[in-house]
Amino acid sequence: MHDRLPTLADVEAARSRISAHARLTPVLRDEALDAEIGARLHFKCENLQRVGAFKFRGACNAVFALDAAAAARGVVTHSSGNHGAALAAAAALRGIPAHVVVPERANAQKLRNIVEAGATVHRCAPTLAARESACAAIQRETGAQLVHPYADPAVMAGQGTTALELLDQVNGLDAFVAPVGGGGLMSGCAIVLRARSPHTVLIGAEPAGADDAQRSLAAGHVVPVAQPRSICDGLLATLGEINRVALATHRVEVLTVDDEAVRAAMRRLWERLKLVVEPSSAITYAVLCAQRERFRGQRVGVLLSGGNVDLEAWPF
Amino acid sequence: MHDRLPTLADVEAARSRISAHARLTPVLRDEALDAEIGARLHFKCENLQRVGAFKFRGACNAVFALDAAAAARGVVTHSSGNHGAALAAAAALRGIPAHVVVPERANAQKLRNIVEAGATVHRCAPTLAARESACAAIQRETGAQLVHPYADPAVMAGQGTTALELLDQVNGLDAFVAPVGGGGLMSGCAIVLRARSPHTVLIGAEPAGADDAQRSLAAGHVVPVAQPRSICDGLLATLGEINRVALATHRVEVLTVDDEAVRAAMRRLWERLKLVVEPSSAITYAVLCAQRERFRGQRVGVLLSGGNVDLEAWPF
Repeated sequence: MHDRLPTLADVEAARSRISAHARLTPVLRDEALDAEIGARLHFKCENLQRVGAFKFRGACNAVFALDAAAAARGVVTHSSGNHGAALAAAAALRGIPAHVVVPERANAQKLRNIVEAGATVHRCAPTLAARESACAAIQRETGAQLVHPYADPAVMAGQGTTALELLDQVNGLDAFVAPVGGGGLMSGCAIVLRARSPHTVLIGAEPAGADDAQRSLAAGHVVPVAQPRSICDGLLATLGEINRVALATHRVEVLTVDDEAVRAAMRRLWERLKLVVEPSSAITYAVLCAQRERFRGQRVGVLLSGGNVDLEAWPF
Repeated sequence: MHDRLPTLADVEAARSRISAHARLTPVLRDEALDAEIGARLHFKCENLQRVGAFKFRGACNAVFALDAAAAARGVVTHSSGNHGAALAAAAALRGIPAHVVVPERANAQKLRNIVEAGATVHRCAPTLAARESACAAIQRETGAQLVHPYADPAVMAGQGTTALELLDQVNGLDAFVAPVGGGGLMSGCAIVLRARSPHTVLIGAEPAGADDAQRSLAAGHVVPVAQPRSICDGLLATLGEINRVALATHRVEVLTVDDEAVRAAMRRLWERLKLVVEPSSAITYAVLCAQRERFRGQRVGVLLSGGNVDLEAWPF
């Protein structure tokens, strides 16, 4: 299945598979934020998902899609945070081992979530090479199945269940805005929205300092950013190739904003929505603020992807 | 109507009156918090209510219950925060003037909410005498109707709609925990729960440094605390007499915790629920942590009353 784009049917199967475990997250609205943008905003609150991020959906789908023999050997991934915690939680629900390779300098709250969820944590240097080689070693030793954070059709299909749910909760969407890091969430949602709501405009929100998705869509192939920099610690990964294909196929446009705009948006969301959202989530509202005229009068789905902020440090 | 306790019918009428304006707030659950208490906790999220607090329900009921002639003269109240913003928002919805007397040293976020909602703000010294005389002067000048923050049957009935909603959202409650300041919320909810769910144990949560409700219930009359002190800035008011009668009649027990316990509970709720809750809300979870054995194995409704934290100052 590893080179095929997931379909709407795959996302629907994922929804059935994870429905006993994932939360149906609420959609919140706020009059003052609507007025600031001049649009009707529907905030899909995946920060209220299990483990505090949409990542639980994809990890849960991947874990419960394994056959019994593969599942018994466990799962492994490398993750700076939310995917690792999600995979650990999903594995715990199925009663199988989870190994998570965590690079040094990871967000402390996300690391605590991984440990709380019961995974075996393996630290490594903060480079992609170190992460991949640590994963490969664990696979060799244990036979565990690698569950990639985003370049994995089962993970993409799981993330897409967010959009399926959102469409049931709102009365039509003119536009949909979601963050893009590796692209798992946006590719899963784009598959659903193109099939079910073909006229919805799909916007990916990306940090200006980690704009590999925007560059990759323009170039027609993955263009990594050498030194990605942003307070959006969940959006530093390089777009996956399968995710790039999904975004291009489903006509996703990527817009970028700088960290200052993200910080202001985060502050405003905490203040008005009373939600703890992480920078990687608030970037969607930052994009709306930066491009008000594009969204005027529209019904907009706004994905708040996670809420794992390190409360040891004051973010504002 | 001013000396009669509201009834279940009054709360049901309030629900019809405010349903077009108030939000139906979600009930959230979290496996880790359940495990910490050894109970099934149902968090009723009134921090997600309009203006960020349950106070909108009571203010909205009071404003929309006025006849046209009285409404045209406007409304007035004194409030350190959430009730003032709620009254301003409800008055704006009905298109009538609102005057809010705000004592010096009020929470800055709450003051911003009052101004954003469009009320005329009148500052006064931070004493009950100054607040009441400022209100009386405005009443004389404008003919505005006083809407007391809690010692008012229409306000109490409005707050009680929270419990009506909660009972529709859960499958039975063994216990219900809500904060007690002036007692408006707890008295409204107690009226509903005693009528609809007579075996539910009703617990009020109060700061140890402002334990007038606990003292008043023990004494059989209102016993003010001379210098109430707590980080729970919404719970410093003295229990109203009508509220005392409601709490006594409906067998509410009041438990106290200190500010250190409140701060730890608030931190834990932000971390796990991804909700911005103010200290006056987090006190309910602090009481559960302090008295785990009492709640073991129970289904507990936990009222999170508001989320208006001043984000200029980091609370942890």
